[in-house]
Amino acid sequence: MKHLTDELLRYAGEGVYPYHMPGHKRRSCGTLSEDFYRMDITEIDGFDNLHQPEGMIAELQRAAARLYGAEESFYLINGSTCGILSAVSAALSEGGHILMARNCHKSAYHGVYLRNLKVTYLYPPCLDEYDIFDAVTPQQIEDALEAEPDIRAVLIVSPTYEGRIADIRRIADIVHRREIPLIVDEAHGAHLGLADMLPENSCQAGADLVIHSVHKTLPAPTQTALLHINGTLVDRGLLRRFLRIYQSSSPSYPLMAGIDNALRYIEESGGEAFREFRVRFREMTGILAGCRRLKFLSGEPERQDVGKLLISVKETGLTGKALYDILLKKYRLQPEMASESFVLAMFTVNDGWEAYERMVRALLEIDAGLEGKKEKIFPAGEEAEMWAASPKKDGTGGTSGAAKGCGKAAGRNSEAGLQSRFAGILEGNRKTAEESPEAEPVSRIPLSRAWDMPSEIAALEESAGRYAGEFVNLYPPGVPLLVPGERITEKLCRDIIRNVEAGLSVQGVRVDKSGEAPGIKICMRVLRL
Amino acid sequence: MKHLTDELLRYAGEGVYPYHMPGHKRRSCGTLSEDFYRMDITEIDGFDNLHQPEGMIAELQRAAARLYGAEESFYLINGSTCGILSAVSAALSEGGHILMARNCHKSAYHGVYLRNLKVTYLYPPCLDEYDIFDAVTPQQIEDALEAEPDIRAVLIVSPTYEGRIADIRRIADIVHRREIPLIVDEAHGAHLGLADMLPENSCQAGADLVIHSVHKTLPAPTQTALLHINGTLVDRGLLRRFLRIYQSSSPSYPLMAGIDNALRYIEESGGEAFREFRVRFREMTGILAGCRRLKFLSGEPERQDVGKLLISVKETGLTGKALYDILLKKYRLQPEMASESFVLAMFTVNDGWEAYERMVRALLEIDAGLEGKKEKIFPAGEEAEMWAASPKKDGTGGTSGAAKGCGKAAGRNSEAGLQSRFAGILEGNRKTAEESPEAEPVSRIPLSRAWDMPSEIAALEESAGRYAGEFVNLYPPGVPLLVPGERITEKLCRDIIRNVEAGLSVQGVRVDKSGEAPGIKICMRVLRL
Repeated sequence: MKHLTDELLRYAGEGVYPYHMPGHKRRSCGTLSEDFYRMDITEIDGFDNLHQPEGMIAELQRAAARLYGAEESFYLINGSTCGILSAVSAALSEGGHILMARNCHKSAYHGVYLRNLKVTYLYPPCLDEYDIFDAVTPQQIEDALEAEPDIRAVLIVSPTYEGRIADIRRIADIVHRREIPLIVDEAHGAHLGLADMLPENSCQAGADLVIHSVHKTLPAPTQTALLHINGTLVDRGLLRRFLRIYQSSSPSYPLMAGIDNALRYIEESGGEAFREFRVRFREMTGILAGCRRLKFLSGEPERQDVGKLLISVKETGLTGKALYDILLKKYRLQPEMASESFVLAMFTVNDGWEAYERMVRALLEIDAGLEGKKEKIFPAGEEAEMWAASPKKDGTGGTSGAAKGCGKAAGRNSEAGLQSRFAGILEGNRKTAEESPEAEPVSRIPLSRAWDMPSEIAALEESAGRYAGEFVNLYPPGVPLLVPGERITEKLCRDIIRNVEAGLSVQGVRVDKSGEAPGIKICMRVLRL
Repeated sequence: MKHLTDELLRYAGEGVYPYHMPGHKRRSCGTLSEDFYRMDITEIDGFDNLHQPEGMIAELQRAAARLYGAEESFYLINGSTCGILSAVSAALSEGGHILMARNCHKSAYHGVYLRNLKVTYLYPPCLDEYDIFDAVTPQQIEDALEAEPDIRAVLIVSPTYEGRIADIRRIADIVHRREIPLIVDEAHGAHLGLADMLPENSCQAGADLVIHSVHKTLPAPTQTALLHINGTLVDRGLLRRFLRIYQSSSPSYPLMAGIDNALRYIEESGGEAFREFRVRFREMTGILAGCRRLKFLSGEPERQDVGKLLISVKETGLTGKALYDILLKKYRLQPEMASESFVLAMFTVNDGWEAYERMVRALLEIDAGLEGKKEKIFPAGEEAEMWAASPKKDGTGGTSGAAKGCGKAAGRNSEAGLQSRFAGILEGNRKTAEESPEAEPVSRIPLSRAWDMPSEIAALEESAGRYAGEFVNLYPPGVPLLVPGERITEKLCRDIIRNVEAGLSVQGVRVDKSGEAPGIKICMRVLRL
């Protein structure tokens, strides 16, 4: 089989002069690697066309399908974003009714908006101990489909950002009994099913449309992904149509080559690489289990993905952001993200021993420093700076920062009980559960309508009880805390304030720290009704 | 100002370990350049966020705006495709009425479909001598706006793929008199306005939304582009919303760095580089003007873009594809594209003298070989192969291939008169002009409805008089010959057959060469009415 990097490099050495795009003419520009430009071509003879593949790209896509156990696979160069948009758009007619997990990526909501879909949300159960959503359950889906017979497609996310894996096999059975398609946003599980000891992926488990971010857990470049299709419940012509719509008509060959490279590596060395990966990760978590204060999310391999190290700070005086800052500033370890109550670090097959050793050493040292300081509150900014400046610092001094920044947030946390980044959503869930189904239109206006309704900016304090005019997301991972048309609860407002104060990235609100008044002024967009 | 490649390289050397996406962990995978992986990060601290820029990316976007004379600019990593989709989506409410040039890129039609827009097409005048669309005229736009007072936005393409530039300044005035926005797909003119001797760009000329493919005429990587906004006729919040929708939530830093590199190069060296570029190009066209048979499109610098070498074969016995094959196989020069009657070669600031010398030498030699062979028909495939095998071959022998392939197509051409790749569109134009406005619903069903109507596959011979169920595009550049809902004329069917036989890439039809029957079987999708 021809591989893209080989062919691109061979071609670059052949002396054919390019009188075509791209305008750099395969010559380097600036300090971005010369090879990148040398391999960056357009659809010239012999290099096929992503939007009408008949040659090399078609063959590479067939190889991807074989690898994942899919009937047909598509290379994506606009990320899982375009895969989810295309899947949602192709699986339902305009205005159709979708059952969708409330912890879906924002692109799923965007698909709903573009196609004017009616939505019923599934609120996955919460793992209270770690303040995260668990995977959705088969029973939830069974119940929801029972309650709403006009649902035409189901979209769930598995594994979740934190690695919770759903029972796709049973869910696919339930969904297929109604002869409607199951879409699985498996963006975080592109490695699943690729080696013996890994849980099966959603293609193997019977899903109709599956989206894989190959850049998340496989060694592929950012913005690359795969979409797989199985069965006949989704029109493949329609799916191709939407892929052509949502992806650039000038797709990047280096990005496609990056997908090919990653899948080729897995085919050639995946067995051994994944075995080592599992051994290393287990060894690390085995050692870390000895920590006194820091806790680590674990679970059956079938339900908790290997590679996600979720470090809970709930039994420490630290906030997630404070631990994140210490890891980054003192130890030079860049985690994936911080929430109020945990830090997430990601491991993949491309991590060597160094990655595990450095993380273990750092966490053991930090945990030891926490010992006997159950009540002590570590600040985020200044304290971390000091740790960084004096690496051997024992952490007993320098608590002056405790009165502001994350110290404050952490202080609030201890009263607040559930310190979830999803607290707003969970709140919404409870609300919905308490209310009768008839009351629902009062607590929520459909997204596809609400996002186009007149709206205005309001102070957060005055927003409770009103309806959201814009998405509010915590990034990463980009799961909405609040969707346009949802009623804003007081709890959610408190959560937003806490998240902003804790230094987390809250998208969709305006934060003004320059005001005369003490504290931070937060504004958000609400509907003018 | 901080530049992305510098910062990414600096960061890669700092020893911070990545416990985050992408999964390659900045380590090379396969033969794609190591630096590419080293610089491929996600939105970690200090590197800003394309979808909510507040730091480095915000600053780079401001620099882009200054460079182009725009009020605000956006980096795009899903090509001009996402820029056009976003512009069309933000400029009109769902169901709104757009005036759109019929030679727009397919993404404009996709925007119409997604937003259920009502469309009035502008058919630009034709440059019959070269079988291409000219730029739309201010008068056409004036007339169309006069005829349809409910039009809410105007979208045109300038420069065209072949380099025809519209009078944007006058057009902007006309459009603004109605207080509606002008969108210019200036994908092929990212270099305009960047140096003294170049015509102004559409931001400088007063357009509201302007899309630039920086990878087309500037030295930036494939799939990169810019969107600019000016004035208050388009809601900037809405524009940002659609950019978030149509672009990956995991944007590639190497692609963004590639935009930065190209713009930085222009800022630092553009004056001199463009001066040289113009001198070289003019010198080349000056020499080529001496050709006897080959003709070259030229025009006032304000109306014909520098850099596009359109080589007409109408006065030779060659087809465009035959010349293309000779250039590629004998001379190792890869043109941008071939149509039936011309070959297009693109030059940019990143071409050295070699590019001009090789092209001039090849064309002079080919032209000399054509002398006195006005009636001779050169085949595409075999003949070119022979030229390649025997570079000094004088071209008098080896005409055996003339009876098939491009020879046939060229033979047909000589009867066919107008050998336009846009012949179908032009035909449609004439039809519309002949018919009364009342007759229009008969000859065209709105795209946003037609593309979702039941359709079936039909043999091309049986399609004339029916309505298209799918786009038919010639690629490149991806301008539709036929839009879903348009009536299929006999002329168009003949054009499609000729294009397929000439070896051009026709998207949206099925070509079966394996049949028992003589000739090629072509099928297309038509509406079931």
